[in-house]
Amino acid sequence: MQAQIISIGTELLLGHITNTNASYLSQKLAQLGIDVYYHQSVGDNPLRLKNTIKNALKISDIIITTGGLGPTIDDVTLGAIVAVVKKGFVLNKTVLKDIENHFKVRNLNMPYNNVRQAYIPKGAIILKNEVGTAPGLIIKYHKKLLIALPGPPNELIPMTEKCLIPFLKAKYSDGWIIKSKLIKITGLPESAVNEKVSDILKSPPPLTVGIYAHPAQVDLKIMAKAKDEKDADKMIKPLEDKIRKRIGNYIFGVDNQTLEEIVGQLLTKYHKTLSIAESCTGGFISNLITNISGSSNYFKLGIIVYNNQSKISQLKISPKIIKKYGAVSPEVAQGLASVIRKLGKTDFGLGITGIAGPGGATKTKPIGLVYIALASPKEIIVYKFTFIGNRTIIKLKAASVALDILRKYLIK
Amino acid sequence: MQAQIISIGTELLLGHITNTNASYLSQKLAQLGIDVYYHQSVGDNPLRLKNTIKNALKISDIIITTGGLGPTIDDVTLGAIVAVVKKGFVLNKTVLKDIENHFKVRNLNMPYNNVRQAYIPKGAIILKNEVGTAPGLIIKYHKKLLIALPGPPNELIPMTEKCLIPFLKAKYSDGWIIKSKLIKITGLPESAVNEKVSDILKSPPPLTVGIYAHPAQVDLKIMAKAKDEKDADKMIKPLEDKIRKRIGNYIFGVDNQTLEEIVGQLLTKYHKTLSIAESCTGGFISNLITNISGSSNYFKLGIIVYNNQSKISQLKISPKIIKKYGAVSPEVAQGLASVIRKLGKTDFGLGITGIAGPGGATKTKPIGLVYIALASPKEIIVYKFTFIGNRTIIKLKAASVALDILRKYLIK
Repeated sequence: MQAQIISIGTELLLGHITNTNASYLSQKLAQLGIDVYYHQSVGDNPLRLKNTIKNALKISDIIITTGGLGPTIDDVTLGAIVAVVKKGFVLNKTVLKDIENHFKVRNLNMPYNNVRQAYIPKGAIILKNEVGTAPGLIIKYHKKLLIALPGPPNELIPMTEKCLIPFLKAKYSDGWIIKSKLIKITGLPESAVNEKVSDILKSPPPLTVGIYAHPAQVDLKIMAKAKDEKDADKMIKPLEDKIRKRIGNYIFGVDNQTLEEIVGQLLTKYHKTLSIAESCTGGFISNLITNISGSSNYFKLGIIVYNNQSKISQLKISPKIIKKYGAVSPEVAQGLASVIRKLGKTDFGLGITGIAGPGGATKTKPIGLVYIALASPKEIIVYKFTFIGNRTIIKLKAASVALDILRKYLIK
Repeated sequence: MQAQIISIGTELLLGHITNTNASYLSQKLAQLGIDVYYHQSVGDNPLRLKNTIKNALKISDIIITTGGLGPTIDDVTLGAIVAVVKKGFVLNKTVLKDIENHFKVRNLNMPYNNVRQAYIPKGAIILKNEVGTAPGLIIKYHKKLLIALPGPPNELIPMTEKCLIPFLKAKYSDGWIIKSKLIKITGLPESAVNEKVSDILKSPPPLTVGIYAHPAQVDLKIMAKAKDEKDADKMIKPLEDKIRKRIGNYIFGVDNQTLEEIVGQLLTKYHKTLSIAESCTGGFISNLITNISGSSNYFKLGIIVYNNQSKISQLKISPKIIKKYGAVSPEVAQGLASVIRKLGKTDFGLGITGIAGPGGATKTKPIGLVYIALASPKEIIVYKFTFIGNRTIIKLKAASVALDILRKYLIK
C-alpha cells in the first residue's frame, strides 16, 4: 500500500502556516504499515489541484487531501475531486443536519454558504466532523482510495483518530504495523549517545533505530515493523534493554514523558516536596513543574530573585557574600537552595544563579555560566555549568539540568 | 517566475520531522515576489527523486531542493540532480578546504566520507555553509535554476539569508516584491476582530489582509505587492491606520513583537518596576517577562505560592481570608498583588490566583476561573475571568491577560 498526502491551501505556499498535517498523518499511516511516498502542497487553484490529484491516482493507492473543504468559493477540493472521479454531488441530509446543529448549539445563525458543505460526491463515505462543519470523505475509485480531510488540525486530528484510522485498520488489518518507542536522554551530548549505540543505529529493518537531538535532550527512536502491537513490543523489548544497559540513568523517560513529569512522579513516590529559588532561569523551572497536573502536592514555593536587593531581602543572602563572590557564584547558589528549602518547609530546595545573556558577562564570568545548587535534608551540592546558546536556550538548558540533578538524586 | 520546493528525506515521509524549511523558504520567496506553486516531499530514493526533479523542471522556473546533501550514501540529492542535468562531478578545492577547516577548528578528525561533499556538479555556483559541511549549490539549466540547500534549518536559514536571497534579488531585481506587516491583537476573540474588519479582509490584490487566530491572540497580516519596500510601506500605511482606528488599543504590537517585550518597553519608558505573585500560572508570567534581555532593570521579584501555606507565610495572606473566600477569590488576588508590590519595593504588583485544572474545581468555582489583580501606587484593581482550555492553555491565557492588563494601565 502506497500513500500520498496532498495538502491544499495558498497559505501553505506563502509560508503563512507550516504543514503539520502531513507529518501527523505520515506518523499515523506508518503505524498502520502504510508507506507514504510523497507529500505535496498545492494552492487553492482548481486546475493545478485537479492535475495533482490525477497524477497521484496514477502512482499511489491511497491519496489523502487536507484542506479546501470550507464553505466558500475558495474551497476547491471537492470540485477538483469530482472533476477527476467524474461523480456528481448529492445533498446529504445527515451532514446538513450536523451542520445546522453545529450553529444551533452555538446560538448562531447558519450562513447560507455552509449548505454547500452538505453537498457530497455521490457514493462517498462520510467521516463525521465533531469540531467544525466540513465532513471528511472517503471515495473509492478503481480500487484506490481518495480521502478528503479538513485542514484545521483541531478538526483533522480527532477525525483521523476516531474515524479514519479504524477504517484503514479494518481494511488493511492483515497487513503489517509499525510501532515506535522513544527513549529520552538528557545529560549527554548527541555525539556521546551516538558513540555508545553506533552499532545499534545500524540495525537493519524490521527493527531500526534513529537518533534525534534537541537542546539538552537526545531521543533514540526504536521502530519495529511487525504483525501486531504485541509482536512489535516483543521485538522492541530486548533492544530497549540493550540501549538502557549502555546509556544507564541518562535515560529519563520514554515516549511522551517529560523531565518535569518524571521528577513529579519521583517526588510523589518518595513523598518529598520541593521549593525553587531562580535567578537567571526567571521562573522557567517553576513553570515547567507546575505544568504537571497535581504538582501542588509536591511543589510548594518558588521565588524569582531578579536583582541583588531581592536576593538579600527575600532569600537572606548576605550582601557581603554578593560583594565578595558576586551574585553568580557557588556561594549564592548554595544560599538560594538552602534558604528556599527552609522558607518553603520542603525536603528539597533548588537554587539557580547564572548569566543568561546577552548582557551581564564579565572577564571571568562568561555568558552561559550557571551555578545550580540542590539542598536536601542531608547536604547541599553545588554544580557549575557553562551553557552555549542564546538567552532562551540557556534558560532551557539550565532548567533541564536542574530538574535532572534532582531526578538523579531521587533515584540514587 | 514560478518556483517549487522539493524537500528530501524519508524522515519527512515518516512524520518524524515537520517540514519547516518549505514554509520558511516560501515566505522568503514571496517577499521577493516569486510565486511558489508547489511543495513536495520525497524520500531518500534516487529514482523517485530524479523523476520528481525532472517533472519539476517541466513546470517551474526555479526549483529549490532541501536536504540530502550529507556525506553518506543515503544522501542522494546531488546524484539525482546530476542524473537529470547530465553534468559530471568535479572536486572543488575551496569547498574541500572549508570542510577540512570545519573539523580543524573543532579539534576533530575529518571522516573520509566528508570528502564526498566537496565533489560538486560542474559549473555550479557555491553557497557557503558557515554552520555545517554541505555547501549549497545553484545550477543553471536551460534558463531555469536548480538550487540545492542543506536540510538542517540552522544551516539552511543563514545560507538563505546571506547567499541565496542576495543572489535572487540581484537576478530578479526588476520584479515585484511582497512585503507583509503583522498587526497583533489581544483581548478580542477572532470573531470580534473579523466583524470589525470584515470589509478590509476582502481587500483585493495588490493589498490583501489575512486573519490568524492563536490562543489569546489574533493577528491581521497585511500583504502588499509593490515595486520596492518603500512603495509597499506607502501602500500598507493607510490600511494599517484604518485597522488601528477600528481595533484601537487591543493592538499590542506588530511583526515579531511580543506582549512581554511591549510591557518591558513601557515599564522602561515610564521608569516603572514590577513584581509578580503567581498561583495558578506557576511562574509562567515571570518566565515570559525574563525572556526579555534587560528585564532585570524593571522586574525585581516573583513569588510562586503554590499552596495555602506559602500564600500565608510568604505573602501574608490572612488564613481567615482564605478560609472565608477561598484561595481562588478576588480577596486573595488583591492581597497577592498588594503584598508582592511592597515586598519587591516596586511600582506595580500583579497577583494571579485561579484553577488551571484538571483538578481543583468546585461547584461554584469552575476550571478556568482566574482572578487577576494589579496593584499600582494609586489603587488595586481586580479582574475576574473564566478561560476555556486545558491546563497549559489556561496558564497561557491567564498570563497574556495579566500582561495585557498592565500594558493597558501603562498606556492609559
